[in-house]
Amino acid sequence: MWFLTVFPVLLLAIHLPNIKSEWHGDAGPWVIATEGEVWPRPARNWTFDEFYLLRYSNFQILYDGYCDITLRAIHRYTHIIFAHTRSARKVNKNKPKKNFSNDPAFKGFIKTLNIEGPTSDCKDLLPTLYADEHYVLNINRTGDEATLSSETTWGILRGLETFSQLLTPSGSGAYLKIRRQVIIDGPRLPHRGLLLDTSRHYLPLADIRLTLDAMSYNKLNVLHWHIVDDNSFPYQSETYPNLSKEGAYHSSMVYSIANINDIIQYARLRGIWVIPEFDTPGHTRSWGNAYPELLTTCYNSTGQPNGRLGPIDPTKDSVYSFISTLFTEVVQVFPGSYLHLGGDEVPFSCWASNPDIIKYMDSQKLGRNFAKLEEQYIHKVLDIVSALNTTAIVWQEVFDNGVSLPNSTIVHVWTGSWKTELSKITAAGHPVLLSACWYLDHTAEGGDWKKFYVCDPMDFPGFNTSRLMLGGEACMWGEFVDKNNIHPRIWPRASAAAERLWSEFADDLDTAARRLEEHACRMNRRGIPAQPPNGSGFCVV
Amino acid sequence: MWFLTVFPVLLLAIHLPNIKSEWHGDAGPWVIATEGEVWPRPARNWTFDEFYLLRYSNFQILYDGYCDITLRAIHRYTHIIFAHTRSARKVNKNKPKKNFSNDPAFKGFIKTLNIEGPTSDCKDLLPTLYADEHYVLNINRTGDEATLSSETTWGILRGLETFSQLLTPSGSGAYLKIRRQVIIDGPRLPHRGLLLDTSRHYLPLADIRLTLDAMSYNKLNVLHWHIVDDNSFPYQSETYPNLSKEGAYHSSMVYSIANINDIIQYARLRGIWVIPEFDTPGHTRSWGNAYPELLTTCYNSTGQPNGRLGPIDPTKDSVYSFISTLFTEVVQVFPGSYLHLGGDEVPFSCWASNPDIIKYMDSQKLGRNFAKLEEQYIHKVLDIVSALNTTAIVWQEVFDNGVSLPNSTIVHVWTGSWKTELSKITAAGHPVLLSACWYLDHTAEGGDWKKFYVCDPMDFPGFNTSRLMLGGEACMWGEFVDKNNIHPRIWPRASAAAERLWSEFADDLDTAARRLEEHACRMNRRGIPAQPPNGSGFCVV
Repeated sequence: MWFLTVFPVLLLAIHLPNIKSEWHGDAGPWVIATEGEVWPRPARNWTFDEFYLLRYSNFQILYDGYCDITLRAIHRYTHIIFAHTRSARKVNKNKPKKNFSNDPAFKGFIKTLNIEGPTSDCKDLLPTLYADEHYVLNINRTGDEATLSSETTWGILRGLETFSQLLTPSGSGAYLKIRRQVIIDGPRLPHRGLLLDTSRHYLPLADIRLTLDAMSYNKLNVLHWHIVDDNSFPYQSETYPNLSKEGAYHSSMVYSIANINDIIQYARLRGIWVIPEFDTPGHTRSWGNAYPELLTTCYNSTGQPNGRLGPIDPTKDSVYSFISTLFTEVVQVFPGSYLHLGGDEVPFSCWASNPDIIKYMDSQKLGRNFAKLEEQYIHKVLDIVSALNTTAIVWQEVFDNGVSLPNSTIVHVWTGSWKTELSKITAAGHPVLLSACWYLDHTAEGGDWKKFYVCDPMDFPGFNTSRLMLGGEACMWGEFVDKNNIHPRIWPRASAAAERLWSEFADDLDTAARRLEEHACRMNRRGIPAQPPNGSGFCVV
Repeated sequence: MWFLTVFPVLLLAIHLPNIKSEWHGDAGPWVIATEGEVWPRPARNWTFDEFYLLRYSNFQILYDGYCDITLRAIHRYTHIIFAHTRSARKVNKNKPKKNFSNDPAFKGFIKTLNIEGPTSDCKDLLPTLYADEHYVLNINRTGDEATLSSETTWGILRGLETFSQLLTPSGSGAYLKIRRQVIIDGPRLPHRGLLLDTSRHYLPLADIRLTLDAMSYNKLNVLHWHIVDDNSFPYQSETYPNLSKEGAYHSSMVYSIANINDIIQYARLRGIWVIPEFDTPGHTRSWGNAYPELLTTCYNSTGQPNGRLGPIDPTKDSVYSFISTLFTEVVQVFPGSYLHLGGDEVPFSCWASNPDIIKYMDSQKLGRNFAKLEEQYIHKVLDIVSALNTTAIVWQEVFDNGVSLPNSTIVHVWTGSWKTELSKITAAGHPVLLSACWYLDHTAEGGDWKKFYVCDPMDFPGFNTSRLMLGGEACMWGEFVDKNNIHPRIWPRASAAAERLWSEFADDLDTAARRLEEHACRMNRRGIPAQPPNGSGFCVV
């Protein structure tokens, strides 16, 4: 983070020109989109009144290196700039040509963006939690070129995204416009995630890829893949193929390991890390289609099995060898050494009904304290995961139920008084993730992104004495979304969380609304069906 | 309605087999879709345990006539059955072949659907309000053929839709299955509409066409096109081209008369009638971009114009000649002799601020009774419309404000205590339309179609002494929807209203949920991105 010491005294200077967007006429009372404002807001930005033009046919991104991530990103952003050029031509259709040479603010054409970043082959490079993402973007150092510098490939990715967001239609033909400015940027928090749930509804691979595209446009860096749950088991294990054969909704609705590798690679090229969740001991109904012996047989009040299966049966040794074998495969499939173990919403009633479990608890002198039984289970699973050199993430109930956890275990807060939770958990020495205020399935009428935007993940007692706040995730639980409505449900609502996780400072809501109006249109232009955030208006794509 | 007298004593017999759907596995606690249940529910249905198979390659719809509407519909439904066959093959993939010949309920193959309906050329036939839509579908009269009979082309359309909905995957290969049954059906109410708002957000033509497709799958027969409003004026008038030139969001966001003709023709082929709304005297801000002189200049408290424009200025004669000329064009473009005049939410404050309007009111001895000024305006516009042989529809405020209206004027109820409103308006002799309980922009979490389903448009004091209840419309106001999210926002939520408008009897909510689960999947299979209505589950398309 060398540049933070180079420019220590410069102040934040976001510039919001008070002009109407090219994309909006004069008629209505709608929210006027900004032009060329970056979402999420960069850490530091010095903007000048001068501007440059960019002509697609006379512009290139120069990079003298071999890293496939950077090379592929340059290809993508070149295409994005081309599409923007085409859209600008549509926006400016039938408008008279401007003579920019009479404009004293016009400083010439930008012909190159120079990438100054890592140049070596990076085929083994994977996104990780504490990877540096800082970058400096300088427009314009010499008059016809811009420079993007970073010590890391991830910083180059973030900077390319920022550069592409600074461009706007010039108001004349297919020229794009960019203001002279210097941006020094890096994330507020290292873990900025989106949860996708492919158990309640299956999501085709194309929709996961589209989601990864959109995540990169919002500088999100973690896909939390809630891949299996009660409802279906689409993960196609090679060790236990019957899990998906019996547990998936349909034979066409599975993710093979080859599919998952493709997704991980697609994500890696966008600086996104994929963390899988295999939630146990609850939320495992679909596991029982092929392996009912893993689950607890529930009994009715007269001591007979009632035909239902409950959570995983923690009293059976065979359960742990099954989980150990399965997780050994899972951590090989999903690189990055993190695994979300779930642990939420474990119903104790089925355990309490089962005579074998009661007998076991008596033998262990656990009384009727089922939280202790859960603790035994979690401890054994944590040991399995630890032996696999993998860090565990658990939902907050595991902590709330008093299960003792090693300090390295990350606790994920999703409900209740989240500020209190974050305080308690960090005070106990655990890293934390916040999702409680970013549940995308909680919808409200109108532009409900504001409720997500006002949530500050650093606003809890003790945050300033702790570096244990890792970040958070917007959660798109899958009960009421499938490929038909998931994209507009996520975007741009998750963008609100993305900004609070990336940007040190939030805007007032009116300013954020204008910026989000531009950002939603930007996503539309790039093929993401983001919904209108602010009411009436339009977007020429 | 000859058949109602032919079968007067037969009772309703909806059959819901208590079996799991082909589209659902055994794992989850989700809503199990029905198989081959029709949405909206037919008036009368006798179902038997026998079934037939349909093999696409050996099936045809036979029609010995010349009506283009019927011929094109046969083409569409043949394609729908083909797509269903393809989907059935996917559903049944990897399943062993069934030997149906051992099944005593199997009665053979259906090879033809015979259409017994109007045979003559129908190039001048347009949907109208009281057009008969009744039909009889007989599966199976002789053993290898089914018969669809109707006295009208519209009845044939509705019956083809029903026939296509009876087919389900047979559980073996690409064969479809259909139960032996007789359906006698016709609508409860003649006006079953959907409102689209293309002013708050522009909708591309392709999305309007897709909406018309989906409407036909729900037996809706009126597209209420709220084409212009405050926000934009996309209707491209030939008489007043500046209205859209200045009032549309963008030059690419207009509907030319040729575009509208295409939509009307597309709708006609599906038995859907297009009624335009040109809402005045409020909701006209976009008119003022090209013609500010039509609108009222608003004044501030010191007697100076405050730079804002209010509703149409009802005191100017030029306003009425403008409207007369515009509406003369509009009623030619939109055949069917109905025009929605709006009349809702007229703000009186701008009129009250304007000294010329005050002077006029004094001269007319209207005092400060602005409702009377509104009445004068509405009367003049009603006279214009009446001279064009067109029936007017107005929003309820016109009636509520005490404007005297001719009995033929249809009043559209959208707010307040709708049962009371319907009673009062029908008691005053006006036909009514109901939308108050079907505002699709009013969203709630989860499967919120139920709130639309429980609304019975006939449940108001006096309905049984009046034939003035014409029907209703689900309203998709456009503030927060554009092409990116409008389809899953409408479907299958509007299907709930469609059933209450078509079907005499409603199902209990659990049964309706199972049927809607099938119907949403059916729409998905046909390319309509309907959202999941009931939570977790899946649909093989």
